[in-house]
Amino acid sequence: MSTHPLEELIHPRSIAVVGASASGRGDGFLSPLLEQGFKGALYPVNPKYSEVMGLKAYARVRDIPGPVDYVISSIPAAGVLELIADCADKGVKIIHLFTARFSETGRKGAAELEQEILKQAKKANIRLIGPNCMGLYYPAEGIAFDRGMTKKSGSVGLASQSGQAVEEITGLASHRGIYFSKAFSYGNALDFNECDYLDYFAQDPDTKLILMYIEGVRDGPRFLNSLRAATAVKPVIILKGGRGEAGTRATNSHTASLAGSREIWNTLVNQSGAVSSEDIKELIDIALAFNFLPEIRHRNVGVVGGSGGSSVMAADLCEEAGLNVIPLPDAIRQELKRMGNAVWDWIGNPADFSISMGDDSSARDVAKLMAAHLDFDFLITFVNGPWYLGPEPFSLEQHLKRYSLQDIGSKPLLIVFQDTARYFIDENRMAEYDKIVTEMQVSFIQRGYPIYPDIKRAALAVSKMIGYYEKK
Amino acid sequence: MSTHPLEELIHPRSIAVVGASASGRGDGFLSPLLEQGFKGALYPVNPKYSEVMGLKAYARVRDIPGPVDYVISSIPAAGVLELIADCADKGVKIIHLFTARFSETGRKGAAELEQEILKQAKKANIRLIGPNCMGLYYPAEGIAFDRGMTKKSGSVGLASQSGQAVEEITGLASHRGIYFSKAFSYGNALDFNECDYLDYFAQDPDTKLILMYIEGVRDGPRFLNSLRAATAVKPVIILKGGRGEAGTRATNSHTASLAGSREIWNTLVNQSGAVSSEDIKELIDIALAFNFLPEIRHRNVGVVGGSGGSSVMAADLCEEAGLNVIPLPDAIRQELKRMGNAVWDWIGNPADFSISMGDDSSARDVAKLMAAHLDFDFLITFVNGPWYLGPEPFSLEQHLKRYSLQDIGSKPLLIVFQDTARYFIDENRMAEYDKIVTEMQVSFIQRGYPIYPDIKRAALAVSKMIGYYEKK
Repeated sequence: MSTHPLEELIHPRSIAVVGASASGRGDGFLSPLLEQGFKGALYPVNPKYSEVMGLKAYARVRDIPGPVDYVISSIPAAGVLELIADCADKGVKIIHLFTARFSETGRKGAAELEQEILKQAKKANIRLIGPNCMGLYYPAEGIAFDRGMTKKSGSVGLASQSGQAVEEITGLASHRGIYFSKAFSYGNALDFNECDYLDYFAQDPDTKLILMYIEGVRDGPRFLNSLRAATAVKPVIILKGGRGEAGTRATNSHTASLAGSREIWNTLVNQSGAVSSEDIKELIDIALAFNFLPEIRHRNVGVVGGSGGSSVMAADLCEEAGLNVIPLPDAIRQELKRMGNAVWDWIGNPADFSISMGDDSSARDVAKLMAAHLDFDFLITFVNGPWYLGPEPFSLEQHLKRYSLQDIGSKPLLIVFQDTARYFIDENRMAEYDKIVTEMQVSFIQRGYPIYPDIKRAALAVSKMIGYYEKK
Repeated sequence: MSTHPLEELIHPRSIAVVGASASGRGDGFLSPLLEQGFKGALYPVNPKYSEVMGLKAYARVRDIPGPVDYVISSIPAAGVLELIADCADKGVKIIHLFTARFSETGRKGAAELEQEILKQAKKANIRLIGPNCMGLYYPAEGIAFDRGMTKKSGSVGLASQSGQAVEEITGLASHRGIYFSKAFSYGNALDFNECDYLDYFAQDPDTKLILMYIEGVRDGPRFLNSLRAATAVKPVIILKGGRGEAGTRATNSHTASLAGSREIWNTLVNQSGAVSSEDIKELIDIALAFNFLPEIRHRNVGVVGGSGGSSVMAADLCEEAGLNVIPLPDAIRQELKRMGNAVWDWIGNPADFSISMGDDSSARDVAKLMAAHLDFDFLITFVNGPWYLGPEPFSLEQHLKRYSLQDIGSKPLLIVFQDTARYFIDENRMAEYDKIVTEMQVSFIQRGYPIYPDIKRAALAVSKMIGYYEKK
């Protein structure tokens, strides 16, 4: 169990949603809590209603009969000071301020109000998440901030100044087999900031991998210390928002963050041993490698299953991502020859499946021999959806056999799932095709393989993962 | 009408498919020709059959009663010399050699046979496409080499050493609104080579944009000349296969191409004014910009419609792609103030739609003012699928109104279509959701907008397009 101050604050017996409304956007926080099946008490707070979404509503937090551990504020900024006073009376320990329009507006009065809120909260011993953020996603506790967020828990932790980024990352990742222990959207980081969330995840036993979307760092030296300490115990992948001039302007009006220079940031991340990513897709790609693959410390890759052109492009993209696409070892050629393989002198690495003209067995032999050979640190294989749907029902098992993953054994493997065939499928069989492809992908994920939409993204992701272990 | 030697060869009155088979892969070339509705005569040639796919089959080409303009060879390599003799007797002018296993095998005998084939073809005045390739795709003539290739013609020409690349590029591109005049898959380039196809497209009036996938160049100085001449009249986008060591090995065993050094290649492309791309997705992304946008010569971009986090990341990714994300001009702020816009002092470029909290009108005002302002050379807008499907039927028109594209006027616009909402849709409404999203995308394409799956790809594509016009 973590001893971090956040730990006891995020297991509330009850949550009050202040500003909950019976219509429009106001029920935004109640719906997901109900949908997730939050086990504690839920209290809508709004003087205008006696009931919201079937729950008894209260005019003020102090009117609530039982204890209130956690408050979500979705009232306008002008009401927050009064809310804090109310919460102080009630003994509330933490407020998530969804409430926005503070320092990020660039307006003097709004920034002063924000500082006053921090002062009053400190005085009342109340901790703050936010303001200007979506708050906590903690599926194991039944806490989410939007409808449709998955109820399934995993071992990835996420701290993000953007709430939209949390929704995108958790949503996209869940369809690739990654689930989250907890995620915090923390906006303007008025009280708890990036260092706190990072420290929390570093010592959280439920979290094995930490993702962050950061727009600004308040205290550089403290952050470097926290980042070093975290990367020493688990991988940290950071997406930095506000890397250039225009981005810095944008972070300022989004979360009132001062982004700092690209050079200083890069030095800081490099020194710490953390992994950096450029956008959300890359962040998830790298997370996928850490989540599904064992520790890989060297860069020799075997690539199998492409056609001629895609094998050539795969070689280029793997090399450009920093991988070594070594020539096919002579021992494998000799073994292929011994087995009577007709293309033993011709096939290489990448192993072009198309040269055996419909007979996949030689390419499968190559894959098997690469998997057994010590020169290869890991493999990347191409997998296709069915090129045509015949009149007879499609057999998933038979199609999967083509890729005979059992021959790969324990060699780390990344799968590039090519959906290019989709565009040649009859329109009236598209739904059927999509269903098959989804089943194939689910089947690979269940077998524990990371799936990528192209070789470039697979190669970059695994290369960055290897970089982390090389530094460590 | 083009005067290039290829021109008269690709309008055959009749096509003979030699090696056509009543079962298995042998009917590979007949099916697509029948499916495309090729208007000329079709002759299967195979001594084993009297009929293939309902068409009378012939034992040899010379047995065919009418004239034979175009021959597709899908027989093994060993039979090709005899086929050439046969075609010479019949007066055939061009043979597409799907037949493979020549110099690309690295075997001496196979390479010698290939040279002998060239020699005999020259003697007989027969031109060759290939060998080791898929040949011609010419939808206006009803010629395709695989089932499911679109029948719709467009103004993009493609020459590619890989056949798979032609299928991928034409398939993926057609779903983004790009169609092709002609495409050649030309494999080992034994007779017609990259220069010939390039010269052909440069003077082809049906082709406004040229795409190439090249693994090797036989004659550097001639290629540079052809490339310079082509880029002077229309844009040429090249994807080079075999940029590094491993890729060069792979090009050699794919199309017997010697890839040459990365540095020499980059210099050559730069000198010519052509646009280079790293992979198939980028190739199509850039083609999309050329296909849908007018000439853009400067780099000032206005970005609208994202949330806070995505606006920050958009600013970074646009700058890193070489675009200028200029601050919101003061004249626009003053105009917003005059209009009574509540966020006139806060909103910027990128214009974060989320700060107006559900009221899209202010962001729409900004988009309209950016479109009218001379400082902006073009705009990029984010578009989302519907976040939730309510109980009432979804109104596409109403949803599209949110993006009020009529306000953009003639300002060039790229659309980033975000499908991240997909992961929050109920599984039993997914098909309905996908249908809506497809309708939205088709609607944008029909209005003439290029659609990208993320801002990074949109920014890189338009930046490379601007680079072409800057050099010109």
